[in-house]
Amino acid sequence: MTAARKIRAAVVGASGYAGSELTRFLLAHPAVELTHLYVSAASSDAGRAIAEIDGRLFGRTQLVLEPMTDPAAAAQGLDAVFLATEHIVSAALAPIFAAQGAVVFDLSGAYRLPNASDYPKFYGFEHEHPELLDRAVYALGEFVDRGKLRAARIVSLPGCYPTASQLALKPLIDAGLLAADFKPVIDAVSGVSGAGRKAKIGNAFCEVSLSAYGVFTHRHRPEIEAHLGRPVIFTPHLGPFKRGILATITVKLAPGLGDQSQAREKIQQAYESAYAACPLVRLRPALPKLDDVVNLPFCDIGFSVDEEAGYAVVVSAIDNLIKGAAGQAVQVMNLRFGFPETKGLL
Amino acid sequence: MTAARKIRAAVVGASGYAGSELTRFLLAHPAVELTHLYVSAASSDAGRAIAEIDGRLFGRTQLVLEPMTDPAAAAQGLDAVFLATEHIVSAALAPIFAAQGAVVFDLSGAYRLPNASDYPKFYGFEHEHPELLDRAVYALGEFVDRGKLRAARIVSLPGCYPTASQLALKPLIDAGLLAADFKPVIDAVSGVSGAGRKAKIGNAFCEVSLSAYGVFTHRHRPEIEAHLGRPVIFTPHLGPFKRGILATITVKLAPGLGDQSQAREKIQQAYESAYAACPLVRLRPALPKLDDVVNLPFCDIGFSVDEEAGYAVVVSAIDNLIKGAAGQAVQVMNLRFGFPETKGLL
Amino acid sequence: MTAARKIRAAVVGASGYAGSELTRFLLAHPAVELTHLYVSAASSDAGRAIAEIDGRLFGRTQLVLEPMTDPAAAAQGLDAVFLATEHIVSAALAPIFAAQGAVVFDLSGAYRLPNASDYPKFYGFEHEHPELLDRAVYALGEFVDRGKLRAARIVSLPGCYPTASQLALKPLIDAGLLAADFKPVIDAVSGVSGAGRKAKIGNAFCEVSLSAYGVFTHRHRPEIEAHLGRPVIFTPHLGPFKRGILATITVKLAPGLGDQSQAREKIQQAYESAYAACPLVRLRPALPKLDDVVNLPFCDIGFSVDEEAGYAVVVSAIDNLIKGAAGQAVQVMNLRFGFPETKGLL
Amino acid sequence: MTAARKIRAAVVGASGYAGSELTRFLLAHPAVELTHLYVSAASSDAGRAIAEIDGRLFGRTQLVLEPMTDPAAAAQGLDAVFLATEHIVSAALAPIFAAQGAVVFDLSGAYRLPNASDYPKFYGFEHEHPELLDRAVYALGEFVDRGKLRAARIVSLPGCYPTASQLALKPLIDAGLLAADFKPVIDAVSGVSGAGRKAKIGNAFCEVSLSAYGVFTHRHRPEIEAHLGRPVIFTPHLGPFKRGILATITVKLAPGLGDQSQAREKIQQAYESAYAACPLVRLRPALPKLDDVVNLPFCDIGFSVDEEAGYAVVVSAIDNLIKGAAGQAVQVMNLRFGFPETKGLL
Repeated sequence: MTAARKIRAAVVGASGYAGSELTRFLLAHPAVELTHLYVSAASSDAGRAIAEIDGRLFGRTQLVLEPMTDPAAAAQGLDAVFLATEHIVSAALAPIFAAQGAVVFDLSGAYRLPNASDYPKFYGFEHEHPELLDRAVYALGEFVDRGKLRAARIVSLPGCYPTASQLALKPLIDAGLLAADFKPVIDAVSGVSGAGRKAKIGNAFCEVSLSAYGVFTHRHRPEIEAHLGRPVIFTPHLGPFKRGILATITVKLAPGLGDQSQAREKIQQAYESAYAACPLVRLRPALPKLDDVVNLPFCDIGFSVDEEAGYAVVVSAIDNLIKGAAGQAVQVMNLRFGFPETKGLL
Repeated sequence: MTAARKIRAAVVGASGYAGSELTRFLLAHPAVELTHLYVSAASSDAGRAIAEIDGRLFGRTQLVLEPMTDPAAAAQGLDAVFLATEHIVSAALAPIFAAQGAVVFDLSGAYRLPNASDYPKFYGFEHEHPELLDRAVYALGEFVDRGKLRAARIVSLPGCYPTASQLALKPLIDAGLLAADFKPVIDAVSGVSGAGRKAKIGNAFCEVSLSAYGVFTHRHRPEIEAHLGRPVIFTPHLGPFKRGILATITVKLAPGLGDQSQAREKIQQAYESAYAACPLVRLRPALPKLDDVVNLPFCDIGFSVDEEAGYAVVVSAIDNLIKGAAGQAVQVMNLRFGFPETKGLL
Repeated sequence: MTAARKIRAAVVGASGYAGSELTRFLLAHPAVELTHLYVSAASSDAGRAIAEIDGRLFGRTQLVLEPMTDPAAAAQGLDAVFLATEHIVSAALAPIFAAQGAVVFDLSGAYRLPNASDYPKFYGFEHEHPELLDRAVYALGEFVDRGKLRAARIVSLPGCYPTASQLALKPLIDAGLLAADFKPVIDAVSGVSGAGRKAKIGNAFCEVSLSAYGVFTHRHRPEIEAHLGRPVIFTPHLGPFKRGILATITVKLAPGLGDQSQAREKIQQAYESAYAACPLVRLRPALPKLDDVVNLPFCDIGFSVDEEAGYAVVVSAIDNLIKGAAGQAVQVMNLRFGFPETKGLL
Repeated sequence: MTAARKIRAAVVGASGYAGSELTRFLLAHPAVELTHLYVSAASSDAGRAIAEIDGRLFGRTQLVLEPMTDPAAAAQGLDAVFLATEHIVSAALAPIFAAQGAVVFDLSGAYRLPNASDYPKFYGFEHEHPELLDRAVYALGEFVDRGKLRAARIVSLPGCYPTASQLALKPLIDAGLLAADFKPVIDAVSGVSGAGRKAKIGNAFCEVSLSAYGVFTHRHRPEIEAHLGRPVIFTPHLGPFKRGILATITVKLAPGLGDQSQAREKIQQAYESAYAACPLVRLRPALPKLDDVVNLPFCDIGFSVDEEAGYAVVVSAIDNLIKGAAGQAVQVMNLRFGFPETKGLL
C-alpha cells in the first residue's frame, strides 16, 4: 500500500447485525480509519460502546454508538459512510451525506429498485428522492460497471437473497442457457440474523422454526427481477440457524444444449467465464454446503443437470451478513476507491 | 375398549430411528401387544435392551433387541410385523412374514415402486419378488383404497418426502387445478434423523450443514412420480435439526381459475374436500411452521397464490419419523385392522 | 375410570410456554374438562385462539384466550385453576380463586418461599398475603405430604431448577450421606423456553449463547435452600436449545461411607428407597442425557463417585416445561384429586 | 515484517478439526510458509486435497494431505511441525521431528503430564519417551516461561479444558485468594468438535444431547492438577453446539478478603495484574457469553462473588479449536520464534 492517507469512514446503524459486522471489517481494514459509529438519536443504544452490543469486539475498539442528530455535520471529513439503517432512513440520509462529499454505501433497500412507484408497495413509503434512483449505482460486486462505480456518490448494495440469486443466475442468462418460457424457481433459506437484531416474538429462540414467508410478496423479488431483467418465483424461508443463506434455484434449460454432459459443460463454461477474475465467487465441483461460507466473504455455487438436460438445479451459498451485506459493502468500497477487491476481507 | 384380544406385533429393525419411534407408539397403543423387537443377527445391538438405545424408553419397557435369525419362526403367532429394515432386507423378509400369516407393514422402499426395473437404478439391487410389487398395497394413509388395504398381506408405507409431497399435490391434481405443462418443483428440507441412526461422517454433528443432495437422482422422485402419475422436479436438502420435513412446492395453475382470490378459493376447496374426513391432515390458514408438527402425527398444509393466479406455492410439514414413517405405519395399521385412524397416535 | 364427573379446570396465563403446555396436557387428560383459558386483560393475545399461539394445538381445540377481568366470576364452577402467571399476579389471584372453592395450582414463585421477607429481595414485591405462605402447600410431587396436599386450597409448584435440584439432593440428605461442611455446587443449564414466550432481546435467536446468569442471586436459590434445609451454591445457565434442564451437582460425601464401591452402593440405595414408588423419577445406570427426558414427564438421575469416595457428582435431567412446570402441575393435581400419579402424562 | 525468510511449517493430522483450523491460520500467517500437510499413511483421506475435507479452504490452497510414511524425511527443511495427531502417535513422532531440527508443537496429550506413570491410566499406553516429559515445555501461552520456550524442541500445548480452567484459576491461586481446603469445582461444557472429526455414533447429530461424561476420570483432570499444583473436581459436558467451551468454576475464597466489594476488588486486581500484558485474555465486566469468543483467539473471563465473600464463581470461555488448540499453538509458535503474540491470529 502507498503512504496515502487512510479512507475515513463511519457506520450509521452500527448496532444492528450488518452494522456491527461492518464495524468488525472496517476496524481490521488496513486502508480504512473508522472514525464514528452512529445509531438513531432515539435508540436506547446511543452512548453505549459497540463492544457492549457485540461482545466479539470487546477490547478491540473503544468506539461508542453516537446518536445521529445532525447528518450534515456528521458527514464532515468523511470519505465514506455506510448506511446500515432502515430503508426510509437511508432514503433520507444518503443525499445528505453525498452532498457533503462522502461516498455513501447504502445497505438498505432505499436505492435498489429502479422504479420509484414500487416503493409504496414493497417498502411501505413514498420515495422522497425518486430522481436519485437512476443515479445511485447498484453494486453487485461481480457485475457492477466499475467505471460508473468509481464515479458514484450513492452506491446501493444488493439485498442478501438478491446477491445469492443473481450470482447463480446471471451467468446462465447472459450466456443464453435458460429457456425463456420458465420462471426460475428460487427457494432460499436464511439464518435468523437476516431478520435483524430486534426484540420481536418471531425472532425469539423458541419460536424460530423452518418456515416459508413472504411468498410472492417479498421485496427482494422485484429487486431480483429488475436487475436480472426476468421474472422469477421467489420463496424465502427462515431457518433454525444464525447465519447464512442457501438458495436452491430450479431452471429450465434452453433447447439445444445437447445431452446431460454437454449441457453441464456449457453451464460450467458460463460460470467459469463469468467469474474468472472474481476472487469471491467459488465454483464448487459438488453442491455447496452452507457452513463452508459462514463467516467468510465468498459466494459458493454448484449445480446439477437432469438426465434429459431439460432442467438444472443451481445452489448458491453466502453468509447473509458478509457477502450478503457487510462483506459485499467492503468489497464494493475497495472497488470504488481502487483497492484490491478482497482487501480487509480475507 | 372391547374385550377383543390385542393385535400381536413385532418390529424388525427396532434400533433405528423409525424403529424405536414405532416401538414407542406400539407400546402405548391400547389395542396392540408388542411382543418382540428384532435387529439384524449381525448387529452389535443384538441382545441389548431397546431402552439402552433410546433412553426415552428407559423404565417403560423391558423389551430386548433380539437377533433375527429365523424369520419364519419369528412370524409365528404375529398378527402384524413392522419392517424398519434396509430395503434389500425388507424385500426378502416381507413374503416370509406374509406367508406365515402376519400382515407386513414395510417402512422401507422395497415395495414402493411399481416397476421392478427401477430397483437396480434407484435402490442398487435386483428385486427378488417382482411379482409382489403389484400385490403389495402402497398405503398413503389419506388416499389408500381401504378395501384393498383390508385384504393386503404386504403393505408398503410411503417414504417421508413422498408423504409430504403427495399430500400437498394430490388434491390439486385430482381437482384439475395444475397446468399440465409444468413439473411441480419440490424443494424439501429434512432433519438429520432421516439419514438413520448410523455412525457416518456425513451425520456427524459438526459436519451437518444446510445443503441439497441427490438432486434429480433421489429414489423418492420415482416414487412420487409413480403415485402421482406426473413428473416432478425434486430436490431434497439436509437441514441442521433433528426431526421434520418442510416441503415447499411451486406449481403452475391451470388456466381459467380466475383471479387470485378465486384461484385461492378453488385450491382451498380442493384441499377441504380431499381432507374433510382426514384427522391427520391440517389445512392451515397461514403457511405451516415445521415445529408445529414435530413429535406429532400431522401433516400441515398451507399455500399462497401469486397476484396473477399463475402460480401457487404449497408448503407441507411433517415429522419425518411420525407421519413420514412410524406414525403413518400405525395409522395404516389402524385402518388395516379396523381401528379408529388416530388410535395410539394422539 | 369411574363415572364421576370430570374435574372442571381453567388455565390462567395460557399464552406462555408453561401455559400452553398445561393446555396440551389438560386437553388430553381423561378426567379433566378444560373449560377456560385466560390471559391478562391487557394482553394483546386476548381474544385469540390458543391454537394461533401454539400451532401444535391447531385443530385440536377451539379454546380462546379470554381476558381475565373478574377473577371471582371466573372461578365460578371451577374445581381447579392453574396459574401460569407472573409472580405478583399469582400472589393476588390465588386467594381469590381459592375463596371461590377452586383448588389453586400456582406455577409461579408467589407461594414458594416460606418467609414473606424474602419476596422484596428475590421477587421485587412486598407479598400481600404473607399469612398464606404457611398454608400454601409446596408440592414437589415425590416429596409432598399427601395428606396435607389433599386438604390444600393453594398448591405451590416448585420452580424448574428447584425440581431438578431437590430430586437429586433430597434422598442423599435424608439418608445422611452428605458432608455437613460443604455446600452442594449446582451448575444447571436450561433451555431458552425457561425465559418465557417474550419478545426481548436476550431471547432472540442470534443472541442466545451458552452463559451463566444470576450467579448467587437467582430466586431459585432461596427456594432450594428453604426446602432442602441446607445452603447451596447455585449457578444457572442459559443454553442454546429450546427445552430441558440438566443439573450437575457436586457434593462432598459424609465420612465413613467406605470405598468407592461401597459409597456408590449407599447412594444407589438411598435413591432406590426414596423413589421406589415414584413412576416419574428414573434412576439411570449411567449419567442422563438431556434429550432422554425432553417432551416427557420424567426426572432422570445418575451419579458418579470419585476414587477416594470423597465426592460425588449427581446429574439430573428434566424437561423444564413438563417435570419443571406443567407436567408436575398435572402430577400434583392427580395426587390432589386422587387420580393415579401419571394420568394424562404418559 | 523484515525480509527474513519465512518459517517453514507442516501440519501432521491436518484432516482433523484442530488440524484444519491450524492449516487455516498458518496459510494466513504472514511469517509462515506452510509447506506440507500430512495424515496417517492408513488414512482414507491420504491424497485428498485439504479443501475437500474443509470446504472453507476451497480455492484458498492447493495443499494435499500426504501420507506420513517417513517422519525423518518429512522433517527435512522444516522449522516447525504441528502435531494434531493421536496421543500415542505424537508420543512417537515428536522426538523424530525434533531430532531433525524442527521445533515440535504437539497439540496432543503426549507430553502434557509430568509423570510417565500417569499415561497408562489416563491415556491407555505406556509412554515410550518418559525422559522427554521433563524436557518438553508445557506452553499455556500466558504463563509459559518464555526463556525456556525459546530453547524448547518439543512444545506441549495444553488441552482445551485445561486452557480454560487454568486461565481462570491461576491468577487466583498465585495471589493466594483461594481457600486451601476446597477443591475448585469445574463444570465445563464443550462443543462437539472437541470429540474430533470422526464417524462415531456419539458424534451423530441426532445423538448429541447435553450430558456430562468422564466424571472424575477425564484425562484433563490430572493435567489441570499437575500444572495448577492443586486438586480440582472436573466435570466435562458435551453440549449441542459445534465450537466453544464455557467453564464455570466455583471456588471458596481465602478468609480475610473483606466484604463482597473488597473481595471483588482483590480478584479483579489479581486478574488485571496477571493479564496486563496478555492480548488474548479479556477480563469482562460481566460474565462471558460463549459466542463472544467463537471463531476468535481469546479467552474471556468474568466472575461473581457471593454476599458473604465466601465463594466466587468464575466463568471462562474459549473457542476449543482456537484458544483451546490451533490458535494457542500459533500464539506459542509466535512466542517461540520471536513474533508478536497475536500475529496471524487477529
